[in-house]
Amino acid sequence: MLQTINIRTQKRTELVDITAEVAEAVKRSGVQSGLCHLFLPHTTAALVINENADPSVAIDIAESLDRLIPWDFDYRHQEGNAAAHIKSSLLGNSLTIFVEEGKLLLGRWQGVFLCEFDGGRARKVVVKVVEG
Amino acid sequence: MLQTINIRTQKRTELVDITAEVAEAVKRSGVQSGLCHLFLPHTTAALVINENADPSVAIDIAESLDRLIPWDFDYRHQEGNAAAHIKSSLLGNSLTIFVEEGKLLLGRWQGVFLCEFDGGRARKVVVKVVEG
Amino acid sequence: MLQTINIRTQKRTELVDITAEVAEAVKRSGVQSGLCHLFLPHTTAALVINENADPSVAIDIAESLDRLIPWDFDYRHQEGNAAAHIKSSLLGNSLTIFVEEGKLLLGRWQGVFLCEFDGGRARKVVVKVVEG
Repeated sequence: MLQTINIRTQKRTELVDITAEVAEAVKRSGVQSGLCHLFLPHTTAALVINENADPSVAIDIAESLDRLIPWDFDYRHQEGNAAAHIKSSLLGNSLTIFVEEGKLLLGRWQGVFLCEFDGGRARKVVVKVVEG
Repeated sequence: MLQTINIRTQKRTELVDITAEVAEAVKRSGVQSGLCHLFLPHTTAALVINENADPSVAIDIAESLDRLIPWDFDYRHQEGNAAAHIKSSLLGNSLTIFVEEGKLLLGRWQGVFLCEFDGGRARKVVVKVVEG
Repeated sequence: MLQTINIRTQKRTELVDITAEVAEAVKRSGVQSGLCHLFLPHTTAALVINENADPSVAIDIAESLDRLIPWDFDYRHQEGNAAAHIKSSLLGNSLTIFVEEGKLLLGRWQGVFLCEFDGGRARKVVVKVVEG
Protein backbone atom coordinates (compact mmCIF):
# COMPACT_ATOMS: atom_id res chain seq x y z
CA MET A 1 0.00 0.00 0.00
CA LEU A 2 1.34 3.38 -1.00
CA GLN A 3 1.02 6.36 1.29
CA THR A 4 1.81 9.98 0.53
CA ILE A 5 3.25 12.63 2.83
CA ASN A 6 2.51 16.17 1.68
CA ILE A 7 4.85 18.99 2.67
CA ARG A 8 4.55 22.70 1.95
CA THR A 9 8.02 24.24 1.99
CA GLN A 10 8.45 27.95 2.66
CA LYS A 11 11.99 28.96 1.76
CA ARG A 12 14.18 28.45 -1.28
CA THR A 13 16.49 26.25 0.77
CA GLU A 14 15.45 24.43 3.92
CA LEU A 15 15.60 21.00 5.51
CA VAL A 16 12.18 19.98 6.80
CA ASP A 17 12.10 17.29 9.52
CA ILE A 18 9.52 14.70 8.40
CA THR A 19 10.42 11.99 10.93
CA ALA A 20 7.05 12.17 12.69
CA GLU A 21 5.14 11.90 9.40
CA VAL A 22 7.20 8.87 8.32
CA ALA A 23 6.71 7.23 11.73
CA GLU A 24 2.96 7.79 11.40
CA ALA A 25 2.96 6.11 7.95
CA VAL A 26 4.73 3.09 9.43
CA LYS A 27 2.14 2.92 12.19
CA ARG A 28 -0.74 3.14 9.71
CA SER A 29 0.79 0.31 7.64
CA GLY A 30 0.51 -2.10 10.55
CA VAL A 31 3.86 -3.66 9.57
CA GLN A 32 5.75 -4.94 12.61
CA SER A 33 9.01 -6.06 11.00
CA GLY A 34 10.11 -5.00 7.53
CA LEU A 35 11.33 -2.08 5.48
CA CYS A 36 10.09 1.46 5.01
CA HIS A 37 10.92 2.74 1.53
CA LEU A 38 10.68 6.49 0.81
CA PHE A 39 10.72 8.01 -2.66
CA LEU A 40 10.68 11.68 -3.63
CA PRO A 41 9.25 12.28 -7.13
CA HIS A 42 11.00 15.66 -7.49
CA THR A 43 14.23 16.77 -9.19
CA THR A 44 15.08 19.88 -7.14
CA ALA A 45 14.77 18.40 -3.65
CA ALA A 46 16.25 15.41 -1.81
CA LEU A 47 15.81 13.05 1.13
CA VAL A 48 18.48 12.65 3.79
CA ILE A 49 18.89 11.18 7.26
CA ASN A 50 20.97 13.15 9.75
CA GLU A 51 20.86 14.75 13.18
CA ASN A 52 17.61 16.44 14.15
CA ALA A 53 18.46 17.13 17.79
CA ASP A 54 20.41 20.35 17.09
CA PRO A 55 18.67 22.22 14.22
CA SER A 56 21.96 23.94 13.34
CA VAL A 57 23.21 20.68 11.76
CA ALA A 58 20.55 20.90 9.03
CA ILE A 59 21.49 24.53 8.39
CA ASP A 60 25.19 23.61 8.13
CA ILE A 61 24.30 20.92 5.57
CA ALA A 62 22.27 23.37 3.49
CA GLU A 63 24.88 26.14 3.69
CA SER A 64 27.76 23.82 2.79
CA LEU A 65 25.87 22.65 -0.30
CA ASP A 66 25.32 26.31 -1.22
CA ARG A 67 29.06 26.94 -1.04
CA LEU A 68 29.87 23.91 -3.19
CA ILE A 69 27.06 24.46 -5.71
CA PRO A 70 26.41 28.22 -5.90
CA TRP A 71 22.94 29.34 -6.94
CA ASP A 72 24.29 31.99 -9.34
CA PHE A 73 26.66 30.52 -11.87
CA ASP A 74 26.95 30.15 -15.62
CA TYR A 75 24.90 26.91 -15.80
CA ARG A 76 23.48 25.60 -19.09
CA HIS A 77 19.96 24.93 -17.76
CA GLN A 78 18.09 28.19 -18.36
CA GLU A 79 15.38 27.95 -15.69
CA GLY A 80 17.57 29.45 -12.98
CA ASN A 81 17.43 26.42 -10.67
CA ALA A 82 20.29 24.28 -11.98
CA ALA A 83 21.96 24.34 -8.55
CA ALA A 84 18.87 22.69 -7.05
CA HIS A 85 19.03 19.86 -9.59
CA ILE A 86 22.71 19.27 -8.83
CA LYS A 87 22.21 19.25 -5.05
CA SER A 88 19.29 16.85 -5.49
CA SER A 89 21.57 14.49 -7.43
CA LEU A 90 24.28 14.64 -4.76
CA LEU A 91 21.97 13.75 -1.84
CA GLY A 92 19.56 11.42 -3.64
CA ASN A 93 15.82 11.00 -3.59
CA SER A 94 15.16 7.65 -1.93
CA LEU A 95 15.74 6.06 1.47
CA THR A 96 15.25 2.62 2.98
CA ILE A 97 14.79 2.40 6.76
CA PHE A 98 14.33 -0.78 8.81
CA VAL A 99 11.09 -1.32 10.76
CA GLU A 100 11.12 -3.37 13.97
CA GLU A 101 8.35 -3.78 16.54
CA GLY A 102 6.22 -1.53 14.38
CA LYS A 103 8.68 1.37 14.57
CA LEU A 104 11.40 3.00 12.48
CA LEU A 105 14.80 1.67 13.53
CA LEU A 106 16.63 5.00 13.52
CA GLY A 107 19.73 5.83 15.50
CA ARG A 108 19.41 7.98 18.60
CA TRP A 109 20.32 11.22 16.80
CA GLN A 110 18.79 10.47 13.40
CA GLY A 111 15.83 12.18 11.80
CA VAL A 112 14.48 12.08 8.24
CA PHE A 113 14.61 15.33 6.29
CA LEU A 114 13.06 16.57 3.09
CA CYS A 115 15.72 18.87 1.62
CA GLU A 116 14.15 21.73 -0.33
CA PHE A 117 16.51 23.38 -2.79
CA ASP A 118 14.05 25.35 -4.96
CA GLY A 119 11.14 26.34 -2.72
CA GLY A 120 8.70 27.25 -1.45
CA ARG A 121 6.69 24.53 -3.15
CA ALA A 122 4.19 21.77 -2.57
CA ARG A 123 6.22 18.56 -2.24
CA LYS A 124 5.25 14.97 -1.65
CA VAL A 125 7.08 11.89 -0.39
CA VAL A 126 5.73 8.49 -1.38
CA VAL A 127 6.02 5.77 1.29
CA LYS A 128 5.84 2.01 0.93
CA VAL A 129 6.17 -0.16 4.04
CA VAL A 130 6.67 -3.87 3.37
CA GLU A 131 6.93 -6.94 5.60
CA GLY A 132 10.21 -8.84 5.55
CA MET B 1 14.79 -12.86 -11.53
CA LEU B 2 17.81 -10.74 -12.39
CA GLN B 3 17.94 -8.78 -15.60
CA THR B 4 20.90 -6.92 -17.06
CA ILE B 5 20.93 -3.65 -19.01
CA ASN B 6 24.04 -3.24 -21.14
CA ILE B 7 25.24 0.26 -22.02
CA ARG B 8 28.15 1.30 -24.21
CA THR B 9 29.32 4.74 -23.15
CA GLN B 10 31.22 6.95 -25.59
CA LYS B 11 32.77 9.83 -23.68
CA ARG B 12 34.89 10.09 -20.56
CA THR B 13 32.07 11.86 -18.77
CA GLU B 14 28.42 11.57 -19.78
CA LEU B 15 25.01 10.91 -18.27
CA VAL B 16 23.16 8.28 -20.29
CA ASP B 17 19.36 8.23 -19.96
CA ILE B 18 18.39 4.59 -19.30
CA THR B 19 14.77 5.23 -18.26
CA ALA B 20 13.34 3.35 -21.25
CA GLU B 21 15.54 0.31 -20.62
CA VAL B 22 14.56 0.22 -16.94
CA ALA B 23 10.86 0.56 -17.85
CA GLU B 24 11.25 -2.35 -20.27
CA ALA B 25 12.82 -4.50 -17.54
CA VAL B 26 9.86 -3.75 -15.27
CA LYS B 27 7.46 -4.74 -18.06
CA ARG B 28 9.33 -8.00 -18.69
CA SER B 29 9.20 -8.85 -14.98
CA GLY B 30 5.40 -8.88 -15.02
CA VAL B 31 5.35 -7.28 -11.56
CA GLN B 32 2.32 -5.01 -11.10
CA SER B 33 3.03 -3.58 -7.66
CA GLY B 34 6.43 -3.70 -5.99
CA LEU B 35 9.95 -2.36 -6.11
CA CYS B 36 12.51 -2.03 -8.87
CA HIS B 37 16.06 -2.29 -7.50
CA LEU B 38 18.98 -1.19 -9.68
CA PHE B 39 22.62 -1.98 -8.93
CA LEU B 40 25.71 -0.85 -10.81
CA PRO B 41 28.68 -3.20 -10.34
CA HIS B 42 31.25 -0.54 -11.28
CA THR B 43 33.46 1.80 -9.22
CA THR B 44 33.94 4.68 -11.69
CA ALA B 45 30.30 5.27 -12.65
CA ALA B 46 27.06 5.96 -10.76
CA LEU B 47 23.27 5.85 -10.94
CA VAL B 48 21.15 8.93 -10.40
CA ILE B 49 17.57 10.10 -10.90
CA ASN B 50 17.06 13.65 -12.13
CA GLU B 51 15.47 15.69 -14.89
CA ASN B 52 15.63 14.23 -18.39
CA ALA B 53 13.32 16.76 -20.10
CA ASP B 54 16.04 19.37 -20.63
CA PRO B 55 19.33 17.57 -21.45
CA SER B 56 21.31 20.56 -20.16
CA VAL B 57 20.50 19.50 -16.57
CA ALA B 58 22.56 16.32 -16.97
CA ILE B 59 25.43 18.35 -18.41
CA ASP B 60 25.27 20.79 -15.49
CA ILE B 61 25.45 17.87 -13.05
CA ALA B 62 28.50 16.41 -14.83
CA GLU B 63 30.27 19.75 -15.12
CA SER B 64 29.64 20.68 -11.48
CA LEU B 65 31.14 17.39 -10.37
CA ASP B 66 34.16 18.12 -12.57
CA ARG B 67 34.65 21.46 -10.84
CA LEU B 68 34.39 19.88 -7.38
CA ILE B 69 36.52 16.81 -8.18
CA PRO B 70 39.03 17.82 -10.87
CA TRP B 71 40.34 15.07 -13.15
CA ASP B 72 43.95 16.26 -12.85
CA PHE B 73 45.09 16.48 -9.27
CA ASP B 74 47.72 14.96 -7.04
CA TYR B 75 45.67 11.87 -6.11
CA ARG B 76 47.25 8.79 -4.51
CA HIS B 77 45.59 6.25 -6.83
CA GLN B 78 48.00 5.90 -9.73
CA GLU B 79 45.66 4.75 -12.50
CA GLY B 80 44.68 8.29 -13.47
CA ASN B 81 40.97 7.86 -12.76
CA ALA B 82 40.78 8.68 -9.04
CA ALA B 83 38.29 11.48 -9.76
CA ALA B 84 35.89 8.95 -11.27
CA HIS B 85 36.02 6.79 -8.13
CA ILE B 86 35.30 9.82 -5.94
CA LYS B 87 32.35 11.00 -8.07
CA SER B 88 30.98 7.46 -8.07
CA SER B 89 31.09 7.46 -4.26
CA LEU B 90 29.30 10.82 -4.04
CA LEU B 91 26.36 9.82 -6.27
CA GLY B 92 26.11 6.14 -5.34
CA ASN B 93 25.56 2.98 -7.33
CA SER B 94 22.11 1.73 -6.40
CA LEU B 95 18.52 2.96 -6.71
CA THR B 96 15.12 1.73 -5.55
CA ILE B 97 12.06 2.87 -7.51
CA PHE B 98 8.43 2.01 -6.77
CA VAL B 99 6.39 0.02 -9.30
CA GLU B 100 2.63 0.52 -9.55
CA GLU B 101 0.23 -0.78 -12.21
CA GLY B 102 3.21 -2.44 -13.86
CA LYS B 103 5.06 0.85 -14.32
CA LEU B 104 7.86 2.84 -12.72
CA LEU B 105 6.41 5.43 -10.36
CA LEU B 106 8.68 8.30 -11.38
CA GLY B 107 7.88 11.99 -11.02
CA ARG B 108 6.90 13.94 -14.10
CA TRP B 109 10.41 15.29 -14.74
CA GLN B 110 12.41 12.31 -13.50
CA GLY B 111 14.55 10.00 -15.57
CA VAL B 112 17.13 7.38 -14.60
CA PHE B 113 20.73 8.02 -15.63
CA LEU B 114 23.87 5.97 -15.78
CA CYS B 115 26.63 8.46 -14.96
CA GLU B 116 29.84 7.59 -16.75
CA PHE B 117 32.94 9.15 -15.20
CA ASP B 118 35.71 7.11 -16.87
CA GLY B 119 34.46 6.15 -20.33
CA GLY B 120 33.90 5.12 -22.96
CA ARG B 121 33.34 1.63 -21.60
CA ALA B 122 30.98 -1.29 -21.62
CA ARG B 123 28.80 -0.90 -18.53
CA LYS B 124 25.98 -2.97 -17.11
CA VAL B 125 23.16 -2.27 -14.69
CA VAL B 126 21.64 -5.22 -12.83
CA VAL B 127 17.89 -5.02 -12.23
CA LYS B 128 15.72 -6.93 -9.78
CA VAL B 129 11.98 -6.26 -9.71
CA VAL B 130 10.13 -7.73 -6.73
CA GLU B 131 6.47 -7.88 -5.70
CA GLY B 132 5.48 -6.11 -2.51
CA MET C 1 16.25 -11.36 11.10
CA LEU C 2 18.44 -8.41 11.99
CA GLN C 3 22.17 -8.82 12.37
CA THR C 4 24.67 -6.29 13.68
CA ILE C 5 28.24 -5.69 12.58
CA ASN C 6 30.34 -3.93 15.20
CA ILE C 7 33.32 -1.85 14.11
CA ARG C 8 35.84 0.00 16.25
CA THR C 9 37.31 2.86 14.25
CA GLN C 10 40.70 4.29 15.16
CA LYS C 11 41.19 7.57 13.32
CA ARG C 12 39.10 10.71 12.90
CA THR C 13 38.70 9.94 9.21
CA GLU C 14 39.07 6.48 7.72
CA LEU C 15 37.28 4.12 5.37
CA VAL C 16 37.04 0.65 6.93
CA ASP C 17 36.50 -2.26 4.54
CA ILE C 18 33.59 -4.32 5.95
CA THR C 19 32.99 -6.51 2.88
CA ALA C 20 33.98 -9.72 4.67
CA GLU C 21 31.69 -8.98 7.62
CA VAL C 22 28.75 -8.26 5.30
CA ALA C 23 29.44 -11.45 3.31
CA GLU C 24 29.45 -13.40 6.57
CA ALA C 25 26.07 -11.92 7.56
CA VAL C 26 24.64 -13.02 4.20
CA LYS C 27 26.00 -16.52 4.75
CA ARG C 28 24.51 -16.68 8.26
CA SER C 29 21.12 -15.61 6.91
CA GLY C 30 20.89 -18.67 4.68
CA VAL C 31 19.27 -16.55 1.94
CA GLN C 32 20.19 -17.82 -1.53
CA SER C 33 18.51 -15.17 -3.71
CA GLY C 34 17.37 -11.81 -2.40
CA LEU C 35 18.55 -8.47 -1.10
CA CYS C 36 21.02 -7.45 1.58
CA HIS C 37 20.02 -4.15 3.18
CA LEU C 38 22.57 -2.26 5.30
CA PHE C 39 21.73 0.64 7.59
CA LEU C 40 24.08 2.79 9.64
CA PRO C 41 22.38 4.36 12.69
CA HIS C 42 24.97 7.16 12.98
CA THR C 43 25.03 10.78 11.80
CA THR C 44 28.80 11.36 11.46
CA ALA C 45 29.69 8.30 9.38
CA ALA C 46 28.49 6.80 6.09
CA LEU C 47 28.32 3.64 3.98
CA VAL C 48 29.77 3.50 0.48
CA ILE C 49 30.68 0.91 -2.14
CA ASN C 50 33.86 1.51 -4.12
CA GLU C 51 37.18 -0.07 -5.02
CA ASN C 52 38.93 -2.04 -2.30
CA ALA C 53 41.72 -3.52 -4.45
CA ASP C 54 43.97 -0.46 -4.22
CA PRO C 55 43.65 1.05 -0.71
CA SER C 56 44.71 4.45 -2.07
CA VAL C 57 41.23 4.88 -3.63
CA ALA C 58 39.62 4.99 -0.19
CA ILE C 59 42.19 7.55 0.94
CA ASP C 60 41.51 9.70 -2.13
CA ILE C 61 37.79 9.62 -1.36
CA ALA C 62 38.39 10.69 2.25
CA GLU C 63 40.87 13.41 1.33
CA SER C 64 38.65 14.85 -1.40
CA LEU C 65 35.78 15.09 1.05
CA ASP C 66 38.12 16.91 3.46
CA ARG C 67 38.96 19.45 0.77
CA LEU C 68 35.29 20.03 -0.06
CA ILE C 69 34.07 20.09 3.55
CA PRO C 70 36.92 21.37 5.72
CA TRP C 71 36.98 20.30 9.36
CA ASP C 72 37.75 23.81 10.61
CA PHE C 73 35.21 26.32 9.42
CA ASP C 74 32.70 28.74 10.88
CA TYR C 75 29.88 26.16 11.16
CA ARG C 76 26.76 26.78 13.27
CA HIS C 77 26.80 23.40 15.04
CA GLN C 78 28.93 23.97 18.14
CA GLU C 79 30.17 20.43 18.80
CA GLY C 80 33.13 20.76 16.45
CA ASN C 81 32.09 17.90 14.16
CA ALA C 82 29.75 19.66 11.70
CA ALA C 83 31.96 18.58 8.79
CA ALA C 84 31.34 14.93 9.70
CA HIS C 85 27.56 15.44 9.64
CA ILE C 86 27.79 17.08 6.20
CA LYS C 87 29.99 14.33 4.73
CA SER C 88 27.63 11.71 6.15
CA SER C 89 24.72 13.41 4.36
CA LEU C 90 26.61 13.50 1.04
CA LEU C 91 27.49 9.78 1.03
CA GLY C 92 24.41 8.40 2.75
CA ASN C 93 23.87 5.78 5.42
CA SER C 94 22.13 2.88 3.70
CA LEU C 95 22.93 0.40 0.93
CA THR C 96 21.05 -2.35 -0.88
CA ILE C 97 23.10 -5.14 -2.47
CA PHE C 98 21.76 -8.11 -4.46
CA VAL C 99 22.30 -11.65 -3.17
CA GLU C 100 22.56 -14.55 -5.62
CA GLU C 101 23.62 -18.15 -4.94
CA GLY C 102 24.00 -17.17 -1.30
CA LYS C 103 26.57 -14.48 -2.05
CA LEU C 104 26.80 -10.70 -2.43
CA LEU C 105 26.57 -9.77 -6.11
CA LEU C 106 29.33 -7.16 -6.08
CA GLY C 107 31.37 -6.07 -9.08
CA ARG C 108 34.92 -7.32 -9.42
CA TRP C 109 36.49 -4.22 -7.87
CA GLN C 110 33.77 -3.36 -5.37
CA GLY C 111 33.99 -3.51 -1.61
CA VAL C 112 31.72 -2.15 1.12
CA PHE C 113 33.15 0.56 3.36
CA LEU C 114 32.14 2.14 6.62
CA CYS C 115 33.28 5.75 6.28
CA GLU C 116 34.28 7.19 9.63
CA PHE C 117 34.29 10.99 9.72
CA ASP C 118 34.42 11.63 13.49
CA GLY C 119 36.37 8.77 15.05
CA GLY C 120 37.68 6.79 16.66
CA ARG C 121 34.38 5.41 17.88
CA ALA C 122 32.38 2.25 18.34
CA ARG C 123 30.13 1.97 15.29
CA LYS C 124 27.55 -0.56 14.22
CA VAL C 125 25.96 -1.48 10.92
CA VAL C 126 22.56 -3.17 10.99
CA VAL C 127 22.00 -5.85 8.32
CA LYS C 128 18.75 -7.35 7.04
CA VAL C 129 18.91 -10.04 4.36
CA VAL C 130 15.57 -10.88 2.74
CA GLU C 131 14.46 -13.43 0.14
CA GLY C 132 13.12 -12.11 -3.12
